[in-house]
Amino acid sequence: MNTTATQQIQDVTTDPESLVGALARQARAAQRGLAAMSSEARAAALHRAADRLEAESPAILEANAKDLAAGEARGLAKAMLDRLALDETRLAGIAAAVRAVADLPDPVGQVIDTTDRPNGLKLQRIRVPIGTIGIVYESRPNVTADAAALCVRAGNAALLRGGSEAVHSNRAIHAALTRGLVEGGVPAEAVQLIPTQDRAAVGAMLAAAGLIDMIVPRGGKSLVARVQADARVPVLAHLDGINHTYIHAAAEPAMAEAIALNAKLRRTGICGAMETLLIDADYARAAELVGALIDKGCEVRGDERIRALDDRVIPASANDWDTEYLDAVLSVAMVDGLEAALGHIARHSSGHTDAIVTSDEVAAERFLTQVDSAIVMHNASSQFADGGEFGLGAEIGIATGRLHARGPVALEGLTTYKWQVRGQGQTRP
Amino acid sequence: MNTTATQQIQDVTTDPESLVGALARQARAAQRGLAAMSSEARAAALHRAADRLEAESPAILEANAKDLAAGEARGLAKAMLDRLALDETRLAGIAAAVRAVADLPDPVGQVIDTTDRPNGLKLQRIRVPIGTIGIVYESRPNVTADAAALCVRAGNAALLRGGSEAVHSNRAIHAALTRGLVEGGVPAEAVQLIPTQDRAAVGAMLAAAGLIDMIVPRGGKSLVARVQADARVPVLAHLDGINHTYIHAAAEPAMAEAIALNAKLRRTGICGAMETLLIDADYARAAELVGALIDKGCEVRGDERIRALDDRVIPASANDWDTEYLDAVLSVAMVDGLEAALGHIARHSSGHTDAIVTSDEVAAERFLTQVDSAIVMHNASSQFADGGEFGLGAEIGIATGRLHARGPVALEGLTTYKWQVRGQGQTRP
Repeated sequence: MNTTATQQIQDVTTDPESLVGALARQARAAQRGLAAMSSEARAAALHRAADRLEAESPAILEANAKDLAAGEARGLAKAMLDRLALDETRLAGIAAAVRAVADLPDPVGQVIDTTDRPNGLKLQRIRVPIGTIGIVYESRPNVTADAAALCVRAGNAALLRGGSEAVHSNRAIHAALTRGLVEGGVPAEAVQLIPTQDRAAVGAMLAAAGLIDMIVPRGGKSLVARVQADARVPVLAHLDGINHTYIHAAAEPAMAEAIALNAKLRRTGICGAMETLLIDADYARAAELVGALIDKGCEVRGDERIRALDDRVIPASANDWDTEYLDAVLSVAMVDGLEAALGHIARHSSGHTDAIVTSDEVAAERFLTQVDSAIVMHNASSQFADGGEFGLGAEIGIATGRLHARGPVALEGLTTYKWQVRGQGQTRP
Repeated sequence: MNTTATQQIQDVTTDPESLVGALARQARAAQRGLAAMSSEARAAALHRAADRLEAESPAILEANAKDLAAGEARGLAKAMLDRLALDETRLAGIAAAVRAVADLPDPVGQVIDTTDRPNGLKLQRIRVPIGTIGIVYESRPNVTADAAALCVRAGNAALLRGGSEAVHSNRAIHAALTRGLVEGGVPAEAVQLIPTQDRAAVGAMLAAAGLIDMIVPRGGKSLVARVQADARVPVLAHLDGINHTYIHAAAEPAMAEAIALNAKLRRTGICGAMETLLIDADYARAAELVGALIDKGCEVRGDERIRALDDRVIPASANDWDTEYLDAVLSVAMVDGLEAALGHIARHSSGHTDAIVTSDEVAAERFLTQVDSAIVMHNASSQFADGGEFGLGAEIGIATGRLHARGPVALEGLTTYKWQVRGQGQTRP
């Protein structure tokens, strides 16, 4: 069993660096076995893992109760305890998510392109797993199952490091998941849970270039920032989602209002939420738009021209244009035309998602071309910035970096490619 | 002029970090202008740059003579001086390479895929420039033109840091190139040459996360290793090319010999050269193959069974299986079947290029699937591992990392993508 192997490693190694190194080497070896399985076999193993999560719900909920009791004793905030809490319904949701990932089309083995060279060489680029992926996350125990499932579906080993608040829950979920995967033929060491809460283990993961191929942080800003600052291993990460919606002069008012309210208020705590609204000076219904936002309970911080529209608007400070509120708070600026909007976005966007609302197709195309963010939208709410909404199935994260993958990252982003070259004895002149 | 702007920056800033920061910010601003140009305009500007390189050949050759004189005075090795030296023919070659890059198909704007969602949203992934690319290179002054041309073709700004041996040559090439680009409408600051030889400037480039989007080191192992160890910016790099060719039992002897000789001896100093030959114990002509290599001047270091074939074979040490000779030296091992060959490669390959020679299609497909290197080949010489040979045109490098791009990296590897989302007023439920 995986837990036994892990236990043995923990017994003989004391420092986190050796521990992480030993687990990563086990994972790398197991990944070869995983990659050699057929796509169907990997999917079937994930279904078994989902079954195990449901079958072992008493043990998982018992472990979760321990975490909740410890969290209450430590005085964790109610929101944190809620993120931590599991029940039969949530556990069924976690199992369903694993099944959904199992049923996603497998990118591994896809042919990206084919080239026939004049000398007879035939070249193909084929998608292959990245290798071993490290996931560093916080209190939500569902990440243990979600991230492991995505990695395994695309043939990758996973090295999981969850938060200390969820330690018992994560162990129970990992144990059930692994039992299911092993029943399905996946090597036990393909999904490893780092068995220590020593924070130095995270540092060891970030430093494990050559042993871990990519790190995915899942959690709040401080976690992601720490990972990006310290990692020697490539990181798939997003920091802020300072997302703009620009209401162009030619925006249809009912659409503008519906999109602005949805982009800001549907869920304020997600990274795709709008944080700054830009209203064109030639848009005729600016006062109604600002009023509607305030009426729905949104705090509006505006520049002088926006304040002149409604006396409930609070003055915006310079910082507001660079702030991700993740709350029912919005900075609003009036801009003089498309160029001014593009300029504001170039200065303040975090490169996550920016949108224009207009019925002017030329302005829309210019915006979609010029704005250099991972996701650019025309006449749609920025809250659609999500792997599920993009039809990718579950996502491992939304990347605001520029290399490898941008925006919602799902299975394809967990693969790389290799070149296969087929010849008939060619030598290079 | 670019040189004037650079001079001004150098005058008012003393420390390399501020200097690099100021140049990178200029480059980022210029990149927006470059990205807004049409593909045809960027290509035309590169043709003008090539014309300028030829028109200004007296100044460039004069600058090069200064570098050569300084190099001789410093006692640079003859091979180094040869890499540094320019003449009319080499300069014409550099200009021709710039024209060839100008004429490559432009990846920017290509649609990677399109998705129509059930709610009416239309998603497209479009290739866009990465942004600002830092190139850190050594003594070959042609890299100044080659790397700048590749960056500009794909809409990227370039921040160039060449070696101190080529400082005058690089400045002259950069000045001519920039004059041509500016004549063609490219913003002058889109291609910057770091105007100091202070080594701290390289450190500042490697640390410039958020200002430089990717670093490409071009040079020897120690340069690449330093860049990979110190960079906070993503690096596109390859270290060793420890490339294997496996002669399977079912290899056709004439083909096996031709490929082995070519893979090792055509050019021994390139990263695609074979460094280890694996001969199957059931291959009937092993002695002839080893003898042919030695007859052609190759030093063969073999294991016991290879030594038994020819008394000119030198004993291989454990280190030999992990050594990139870049010389007429080869390590040769006898292996017992395909599985043993795959095991040896898994332990010792650097993940660059590995090849099998066989007429057994099943064995070949197994090799192409199982070997996890950037390039895997069947019945071809590993010396084909090259962007030009792959039909990509010029290459910025060969990547042995796993993310973003693998193997020969040309224009496509200098782009990323963004998601364009077109709606009709959709809000998320």
